Amino acid sequence: MARSGKNKGNLIIIGGHENKDGQADILEKVKGYANRGKNCLVIVTVATQTPGEMAAEYTKVFKDLGVRNVDVLDVHTRDDAYADEAVEKIMKASVVFFTGGDQLRLTSQIGDTPVFRCMRDLYRDGATIVGTSAGAAALPETMLISGPSDESYDAFALGMAPGLGLIHDVVIDTHFAERGRIGRLLAAVSQNPRILGIGIDEDTAVIVEGDEAFSVIGSGAVYVLDGRKITYSSLSEEETEGILSMHNVLLHVLSDGSKFDLITRNPVDPEPNEARAKSA
Amino acid sequence: MARSGKNKGNLIIIGGHENKDGQADILEKVKGYANRGKNCLVIVTVATQTPGEMAAEYTKVFKDLGVRNVDVLDVHTRDDAYADEAVEKIMKASVVFFTGGDQLRLTSQIGDTPVFRCMRDLYRDGATIVGTSAGAAALPETMLISGPSDESYDAFALGMAPGLGLIHDVVIDTHFAERGRIGRLLAAVSQNPRILGIGIDEDTAVIVEGDEAFSVIGSGAVYVLDGRKITYSSLSEEETEGILSMHNVLLHVLSDGSKFDLITRNPVDPEPNEARAKSA
Repeated sequence: MARSGKNKGNLIIIGGHENKDGQADILEKVKGYANRGKNCLVIVTVATQTPGEMAAEYTKVFKDLGVRNVDVLDVHTRDDAYADEAVEKIMKASVVFFTGGDQLRLTSQIGDTPVFRCMRDLYRDGATIVGTSAGAAALPETMLISGPSDESYDAFALGMAPGLGLIHDVVIDTHFAERGRIGRLLAAVSQNPRILGIGIDEDTAVIVEGDEAFSVIGSGAVYVLDGRKITYSSLSEEETEGILSMHNVLLHVLSDGSKFDLITRNPVDPEPNEARAKSA
Repeated sequence: MARSGKNKGNLIIIGGHENKDGQADILEKVKGYANRGKNCLVIVTVATQTPGEMAAEYTKVFKDLGVRNVDVLDVHTRDDAYADEAVEKIMKASVVFFTGGDQLRLTSQIGDTPVFRCMRDLYRDGATIVGTSAGAAALPETMLISGPSDESYDAFALGMAPGLGLIHDVVIDTHFAERGRIGRLLAAVSQNPRILGIGIDEDTAVIVEGDEAFSVIGSGAVYVLDGRKITYSSLSEEETEGILSMHNVLLHVLSDGSKFDLITRNPVDPEPNEARAKSA
């Protein structure tokens, strides 16, 4: 596959609550990336306040699925993320897996540490970085950290913070349909339409390959909000209070098997026979 | 105002839970339409299973707001909707107000009865028809009756039924952001992109004048989904199961003061100085 970007790696960005037994399509996919190259999946529990439980659960799940080598990295303090042993653990990973928890906990603990720099270098060289829930939201340059669900938006009710910077020009929201989060993703897009809003349902993931395109896997939908054709937004017109208005936002709803081109910012319409084969 | 349509009346379509005291902007607006012409507001409680309570509540609210004449019409059986007294009650209305409840109860009781025909004629002649929640959802030709909230959609998970037919080419959903209903409105639009999807938040309403345009009033947002530029939908490609995919849906988010042209299907972008005046 031709790749013009500087990242040879892949991202798997999961909307949270991925199935862990039965039809575990997403984690099966993660296994595929783990059992290659360095042949090791490292679970990183820094985002969660229950790292022990979460490490035990995911270790069992991945071993049961057939991942050959599973290791766990927890980081309690920034010092931990400077430790040589921590860096060595990450060095051997073909897949780095960020659990859920709190995205600010994740970025404030490992941001700009040797452990994170090692992850970023691995990703550039071809490793796969996986994040679910908070671990997914933290991946872009700018991350959504707060804002009520199931509400339309005051233009300034949104919490954003600098994320891990592993993907650019997008903002990620998770648990999307389940928590009624379109309002807050619209607010994020209105702040700067350069940013593509990607809302991912539970048990659903996007797989980003080389910064250029993503495909969708899982049982829910992925919503892409594109603000480049907005003709009016109350935010840009200096309205400082009240519910946000936005005219002409482009919305794509994608599901298992859908593809999206991140360079042109267009969904790839399937060939008619492809769609028919898919439904057969 | 020039009007090409055959309806001289107005519709006020409320997303449910409109404020009833304090900042009751929507019901104040209803009052304005009630205190003119025939000078009477008739509350129609047919949709609800607690008509007595609801009639008492709205009667008090409208009297406190200063509506000069308030009357109540309840219909328990289709026979009730054939009674001369019922028709006479509606005949004297400048505003007919449908409460919430169950939209199928509403249409199955009064559909094609003299009481409904009288409402429709009044509306054509200039009366105002108001509906909130189920009373709002029931107003179009085709109405949404069921479908889970806070979920992405299986293309066929949607319940639709013939509505009152007072507005054409739209489908209305209520309690919109609060119940995370964008998935089901997208599913409705995908079934036939001729239909414009209008999702209305609680304490928010659209005021439709003469079939041609609407304006927004209230504390929440109104979401308009326009499918006319859809390049791909899994439904049209004969995919018979799985989560719906749709590419290139146009989404408008509107708030208090926004206007929408139903003929061209475009939001009206405010003049820059208008927006600034609004925020001042």
